[in-house]
Amino acid sequence: MGNWTFVRAVRVACFPTGGGRAFLFSTRLCYTLVAYSDKPGAQHRDGLSSVGRRAPPVLGPLVWRRMMRAVDLIIKKRDGGILSAAEIDYFCQSYTRGDIPDYQAAAWAMAVLLKGMTRQETIDLTLSMAASGETLDLHDVAPVVVDKHSTGGVGDKTTIAVAPLVAACGLPVGKMSGRGLGFSGGTLDKLEAIPGYETVLSIEQFKAQLGQVGVVVAGQSGDLAPADAKLYALRDVTGTVPSLPLIASSIMSKKIAAGADAIVLDVKTGTGAFMKTLDEARALARIMVDIGQGLGRQVSAVISDMNQPLGRAVGNALEVIEAVDTLRGKGPADFCQHCMVVAEQMLVLGDPSLDLASARSLLRDALESGRALDKLMAWISAQGGDITVLGDPPALRRAPLVRSVPAPRSGIVRAIDAMEVGLAAVELGAGRARKGDPIDHSVGVVLHAKVGEEVRAGDPLLTIHASDGDKLAAARRRLLAAYAWSEGDVEPPPLVYEVIC
Amino acid sequence: MGNWTFVRAVRVACFPTGGGRAFLFSTRLCYTLVAYSDKPGAQHRDGLSSVGRRAPPVLGPLVWRRMMRAVDLIIKKRDGGILSAAEIDYFCQSYTRGDIPDYQAAAWAMAVLLKGMTRQETIDLTLSMAASGETLDLHDVAPVVVDKHSTGGVGDKTTIAVAPLVAACGLPVGKMSGRGLGFSGGTLDKLEAIPGYETVLSIEQFKAQLGQVGVVVAGQSGDLAPADAKLYALRDVTGTVPSLPLIASSIMSKKIAAGADAIVLDVKTGTGAFMKTLDEARALARIMVDIGQGLGRQVSAVISDMNQPLGRAVGNALEVIEAVDTLRGKGPADFCQHCMVVAEQMLVLGDPSLDLASARSLLRDALESGRALDKLMAWISAQGGDITVLGDPPALRRAPLVRSVPAPRSGIVRAIDAMEVGLAAVELGAGRARKGDPIDHSVGVVLHAKVGEEVRAGDPLLTIHASDGDKLAAARRRLLAAYAWSEGDVEPPPLVYEVIC
Repeated sequence: MGNWTFVRAVRVACFPTGGGRAFLFSTRLCYTLVAYSDKPGAQHRDGLSSVGRRAPPVLGPLVWRRMMRAVDLIIKKRDGGILSAAEIDYFCQSYTRGDIPDYQAAAWAMAVLLKGMTRQETIDLTLSMAASGETLDLHDVAPVVVDKHSTGGVGDKTTIAVAPLVAACGLPVGKMSGRGLGFSGGTLDKLEAIPGYETVLSIEQFKAQLGQVGVVVAGQSGDLAPADAKLYALRDVTGTVPSLPLIASSIMSKKIAAGADAIVLDVKTGTGAFMKTLDEARALARIMVDIGQGLGRQVSAVISDMNQPLGRAVGNALEVIEAVDTLRGKGPADFCQHCMVVAEQMLVLGDPSLDLASARSLLRDALESGRALDKLMAWISAQGGDITVLGDPPALRRAPLVRSVPAPRSGIVRAIDAMEVGLAAVELGAGRARKGDPIDHSVGVVLHAKVGEEVRAGDPLLTIHASDGDKLAAARRRLLAAYAWSEGDVEPPPLVYEVIC
Repeated sequence: MGNWTFVRAVRVACFPTGGGRAFLFSTRLCYTLVAYSDKPGAQHRDGLSSVGRRAPPVLGPLVWRRMMRAVDLIIKKRDGGILSAAEIDYFCQSYTRGDIPDYQAAAWAMAVLLKGMTRQETIDLTLSMAASGETLDLHDVAPVVVDKHSTGGVGDKTTIAVAPLVAACGLPVGKMSGRGLGFSGGTLDKLEAIPGYETVLSIEQFKAQLGQVGVVVAGQSGDLAPADAKLYALRDVTGTVPSLPLIASSIMSKKIAAGADAIVLDVKTGTGAFMKTLDEARALARIMVDIGQGLGRQVSAVISDMNQPLGRAVGNALEVIEAVDTLRGKGPADFCQHCMVVAEQMLVLGDPSLDLASARSLLRDALESGRALDKLMAWISAQGGDITVLGDPPALRRAPLVRSVPAPRSGIVRAIDAMEVGLAAVELGAGRARKGDPIDHSVGVVLHAKVGEEVRAGDPLLTIHASDGDKLAAARRRLLAAYAWSEGDVEPPPLVYEVIC
């Protein structure tokens, strides 16, 4: 029968079949019965089980299939074919192991970008990438764990306020977060503005803190979804980034591997977001919700505005201060409202018996009682952060130059180009032009007037926190140019366009 | 101004311009004025000259263009954009040098396959691939040199008969040929059935023989069009072979680099060809003729039938015997007629003052006078081949088993599946399943009845030349199954569908 081989075995049970041998592959995510031979011309058969975190391993019907070759799967997708779960898993796992070279994965990714993937293919790819490395099971420390993910924007410090707010209502929040790149900031960078905050946790530390404190926000473990990390790096240099199925499976594979039961997606749309139009954002939200639900998770997506920055602060330490202020009841109205929408969704997903009104009332109580602020302090403290600075904003606001910029004219703010504000922050040193660049946590900008607000010439429009005069002058020019003005009334953009679930 | 860089310089003249420096790049194929800097954000300008083998270097208008990055060119093509000559040349030369990695070229090739290329892009790619290595100038040994190229089929020994036939009319034929792969045989393999025939010639030897004998057929020099060799190997494993612009530029780049003034393309269509339909063959022929003419060559394409094998012999030595018989006036009618059509086109392209009727009369004279056969002997002899075997067919027909297969029934032959006959020959050992496989020059098959011919049950239908009984039995089954029968009259397929020029 030739030599027997197999693609992937996490836990293996081996038993004889009619003509050869079969392996029962079992991970937390899926169960697969696979039996095949590497003899040329031989065939293998496999049956994917019903898939789902808690589903029992119900074996599907066995299907005979020819031995796979990467080039045939590229050709199938190139010609508009639909790849089976087994084909996608073969491609994904072989690529991760290095058995399929980058050039074949690049041709495949371009074919996927130009020919698309069905809902089921996208789910299968997500599952395969999630299963390509370690997968977390958090149920020994919490019965239900909720996560949130933002597609990235300017001034988006939502996690820092929302995670303790939701945890204060009794729902544990365990989140693995990322770094900022380009105009879009990253939660880890913001949290690192707090002296001592440790973003690198072992999985044991992550779980222990989740169980004891109820909130943990750490960097993503390199052991989670390595297929995604490898494929993403390749897509970045082969022009294959803007594919909805590839973007959606990239995001969701990490979330699935990180073990959350419920996930709220904050999909940004507008000039300061990756999805420029509402239609694009809606399509991405829809496929991500489909993926999560297809894999047995509770998922909803909030489509929120990113035409102007969220809140008033942009820059790492400044955003931490704004998030803490929000938990003290002194945050900007738009940011507070956005946090409530996201937090409500998290609570409702975590406890389906709850309705939105009850969720909101629980959240108000957590906020007004100070329990949310206490939870923030407990969380930051558990991760080694110096919480004394959180009660003393000047200790965080440490940029050498702080300048107020007066409004150049009277009028109503018609628009603030979020992308330009984000790029001004990058130029000040608050963000990265390239992966791995160092960042300055102290610099940034506070916007005193947002869209729809009236300003008189000479009133303070912005406060810029900078490390030197040249950068300050450049940011000042860019920020003033980002403002558009109107003589008459302006309706501010909606905070949230819709919720998809 | 930063450091100055350039893509490619064959002969460089450097002169100062307004803001920096400019280089005049000159090859035999094109002249380019390029001036740019590698400073980030800097721009370069270039102007491609009018392009053509003997055209003077007329510089086009200068165009300012941003510094190129491979990923941007992939994205441009992915989004359906049209690449400029400079962009294509940058991509092609950088890939050949190894500055662009395989994974970027693979993504680009998939984007080209799915989005297409304009006529001008295809011409620019051909020129760039032709200019990626050495280019031959044969005008010191002959004023006009003609070449032919077949897209590949079963029983296609045309070059062996046509090259000496045309040369005997005074038009030198210099051809670099390839090996067979799969069902399709290669001229070099056939010629190597002649003991002593040397396919590896230096460029000096190639030119000397062309000048002295007027015919030379050798393997392609690795120094010609290395971009094509590298890209073709990548396409083979990334599912990017069946793209008309990529196929056409691959074929034509080698022809252009090899220095022919006139090229006749023999584009096969049918079950035993790569182009299965007439429309596909017509499209490939059209773009190849456009490329050649766009680069100043005389080019025409004969679209010929490959639904049944060409002639009666399939297998290396058997095909050599049939080609020699043809020059003796004893070849199969279909093959003789096909050779005349191709040879006429070659003569007319090589001497535009000639019309088809005069060409045919010259060819008949060369054939009937024995000059064509003499030219064949002079050519084979010049390349070290033992010409005594050409007058003694049994010395070439050396397979240990030769079996006549009788017709299983009476009737008219309705079809002979050329692909199946080609695969039967591969199984006998006459061809290669994989690149680099050894081949057996002695084995093959002779078809005694072709489409439209009447056969009585028990008459000899085939003669199989095999190395052992198992292979003979397998080939016998496959060949008999390749025949389809009719009770009534059958019109044989046309030999030539059309000529495109």
